[in-house]
Amino acid sequence: MKEIIFATQNEGKLKEFRDLVSLLPWRVYSLKDRPKILLPEETGASFRENAEIKARAAAKAAGMIALADDSGLEVDYLGGEPGVFSARFAGEHGNDSKNNEKLLSLLKGVPEEKRAACFSCVIAVSFPSGETFFCQGVCEGYITHSPRGNNGFGYDPLFWLPSFGKTMAELNMEEKNQISHRGKAFRATLPLLEKLLD
Amino acid sequence: MKEIIFATQNEGKLKEFRDLVSLLPWRVYSLKDRPKILLPEETGASFRENAEIKARAAAKAAGMIALADDSGLEVDYLGGEPGVFSARFAGEHGNDSKNNEKLLSLLKGVPEEKRAACFSCVIAVSFPSGETFFCQGVCEGYITHSPRGNNGFGYDPLFWLPSFGKTMAELNMEEKNQISHRGKAFRATLPLLEKLLD
Repeated sequence: MKEIIFATQNEGKLKEFRDLVSLLPWRVYSLKDRPKILLPEETGASFRENAEIKARAAAKAAGMIALADDSGLEVDYLGGEPGVFSARFAGEHGNDSKNNEKLLSLLKGVPEEKRAACFSCVIAVSFPSGETFFCQGVCEGYITHSPRGNNGFGYDPLFWLPSFGKTMAELNMEEKNQISHRGKAFRATLPLLEKLLD
Repeated sequence: MKEIIFATQNEGKLKEFRDLVSLLPWRVYSLKDRPKILLPEETGASFRENAEIKARAAAKAAGMIALADDSGLEVDYLGGEPGVFSARFAGEHGNDSKNNEKLLSLLKGVPEEKRAACFSCVIAVSFPSGETFFCQGVCEGYITHSPRGNNGFGYDPLFWLPSFGKTMAELNMEEKNQISHRGKAFRATLPLLEKLLD
């Protein structure tokens, strides 16, 4: 049985990853299984740096290959903001409605063609030695003028996908996993993990 | 025989990749084999965007899976500069000595502990449909106060690797491939390519 730890507190992400690798002979631990592992603060200037901070700390502490992700929204008109501040854009961590309100107010009056944005997810895969590899998934879209849809979380209700004619929050889980930044990042990472754990 | 195109004009990168996959039953084309493929300008705001611009254009034009890379230097003290402008930092594309001079002058008087930097390489892998995956390799170090070493190119003579006690330009090719951003990015990409071409 091959062992790996996913450095996340997020049950949703953990479930998504466990589903993805359910057919492989891997035991996937999370931070819940190793409560003594304390991750450093996410002080990175990029998704890549934050993912690396978490993966390296977990790999070193657990003594096994670790993966960690960091993700967020980058809005062209705002020069890539909110970026690493996506979850705490309006100040309070994880307050989706305040964050969405702030984003809409910053884009007030900005026409459709200037509202391009992308969701980005970087996954870091670290060895206990510190060696780290990265995979990334990106999902492109536009910021709407008002929220639509009840699925998902974060900025999903404001993220318009032209090819679907829907916001991310109007997709079901299967559709979202196919096209989302995290789904794509996981799919890019999987072959690497298979090789590294081999 | 599986076919793939590497969207690069750079013979060094092409050789590196062909060496890496020499044992696999792949035919690796480059832009030299398909002179009619004109890549769009690299107008992206990040390595990821520039790599994607090249890979998507090549995959669509060639009708096969394409990969492309973009890479550069990010200096903490300069807020991530020169970044996507690494090759043309001093104005003229690919003028290594001018670029190095400019970097040293911007860091004049900055103490060692504030001279942290990283080389970063993002590889995009695109399908003709446009679907794109990304892998990234990063190499961390410090900017020296003066150039050292004659190997490599670009900022290599200014890039200090504490674990080697050498600059990147003092490494031989084998050492460099082991630890360089591009070497790591290629190694992260290879399992993905094997899966996609399967």
